[in-house]
Amino acid sequence: MWTSRDLELDPRPRGFHLITREVVGALPELRELATGLLHLHILHTSASLTLNENASPDVRTDFESWFGRAVPEDAPYWRHTLEGADDMPAHVKASLLGSSLTLPVRNGGLALGTWQGIYLGEHRDRGGPRSLVLTLWGE
Amino acid sequence: MWTSRDLELDPRPRGFHLITREVVGALPELRELATGLLHLHILHTSASLTLNENASPDVRTDFESWFGRAVPEDAPYWRHTLEGADDMPAHVKASLLGSSLTLPVRNGGLALGTWQGIYLGEHRDRGGPRSLVLTLWGE
Amino acid sequence: MWTSRDLELDPRPRGFHLITREVVGALPELRELATGLLHLHILHTSASLTLNENASPDVRTDFESWFGRAVPEDAPYWRHTLEGADDMPAHVKASLLGSSLTLPVRNGGLALGTWQGIYLGEHRDRGGPRSLVLTLWGE
Repeated sequence: MWTSRDLELDPRPRGFHLITREVVGALPELRELATGLLHLHILHTSASLTLNENASPDVRTDFESWFGRAVPEDAPYWRHTLEGADDMPAHVKASLLGSSLTLPVRNGGLALGTWQGIYLGEHRDRGGPRSLVLTLWGE
Repeated sequence: MWTSRDLELDPRPRGFHLITREVVGALPELRELATGLLHLHILHTSASLTLNENASPDVRTDFESWFGRAVPEDAPYWRHTLEGADDMPAHVKASLLGSSLTLPVRNGGLALGTWQGIYLGEHRDRGGPRSLVLTLWGE
Repeated sequence: MWTSRDLELDPRPRGFHLITREVVGALPELRELATGLLHLHILHTSASLTLNENASPDVRTDFESWFGRAVPEDAPYWRHTLEGADDMPAHVKASLLGSSLTLPVRNGGLALGTWQGIYLGEHRDRGGPRSLVLTLWGE
């Protein structure tokens, strides 16, 4: 059984955002799978997908703090600066975190840990809407 | 053919640990697959899975050295500090390295490079046992 | 439908290189898939695969600049130095970026964003040829 679906996320401010509910809500077919996998892919190079702590909003703020310092906007070595100071750091962050997630499915739902949630990493100041391709398969 | 299995790893000290043998040993069904994939997922947000050099233990020590400096415990900007100084850095390391691995399967075994081994990244001082979901599928 | 194929990439200088065309060209079976996924796996621990901007070569140069500074060759804490100053940083970079990519397939082609291309991260000074395992499955 294969399901392929588009999901468009509304624009969000720069930072890390929990999108687990939105993803699961877009996939009623999840309930029909006993065993399988869900692949999420973001069609952009300045935003990312990762899994992390779904409870404390401070964790998401701290992610933004760390990544902002680790990949600075004002580094003297950036050459690709035409699209704004936030653009090249956004590309590096996107590759550090990744464009895709593959998640286990069991008994009609995502088999995640109690504290695991899906984060959208929005690395641009004004990234606009973000498009995802969701692929679900299993039996 | 689908196989879904739990694997609980005994507590390990903070650092990077080779778990290839333990993973393969938990999956006798691997031998039945001509072509397929294995997905490993860790159900925690302060530990990670990655692939790296399986020979020299120094590589794993150097990983810990680099990650300890890149994501420092005493950064003044951390807000999420209630669970201990090692907690927030553990979350960032988990997302830098990732919670999942997808590995190719061929002729009844993992199709890895000669020097590739599966690392558990234990990023807490006392992380306790760690739970994995293993999903194997193919033909 | 399953396809498993080897792809050997010619030696490339240290840095980031676009390999999308080479990967797609090695997989005529892509055209037969309505919905599916492609998994790319690199059989080495000092090179990586990631997705990023496919237009400006400056982005790839900036990637090399950032990673070279983030994971320095001359760090006093490296123990694994026998294989050269570029070796241990290459291992860390390989795990930061990852050894695998899973990409959505739709209507006979990769379902990537307009600006997404597949990067080979060559992290050694003389990495030599690099071997990939490509696994394609779907319906």
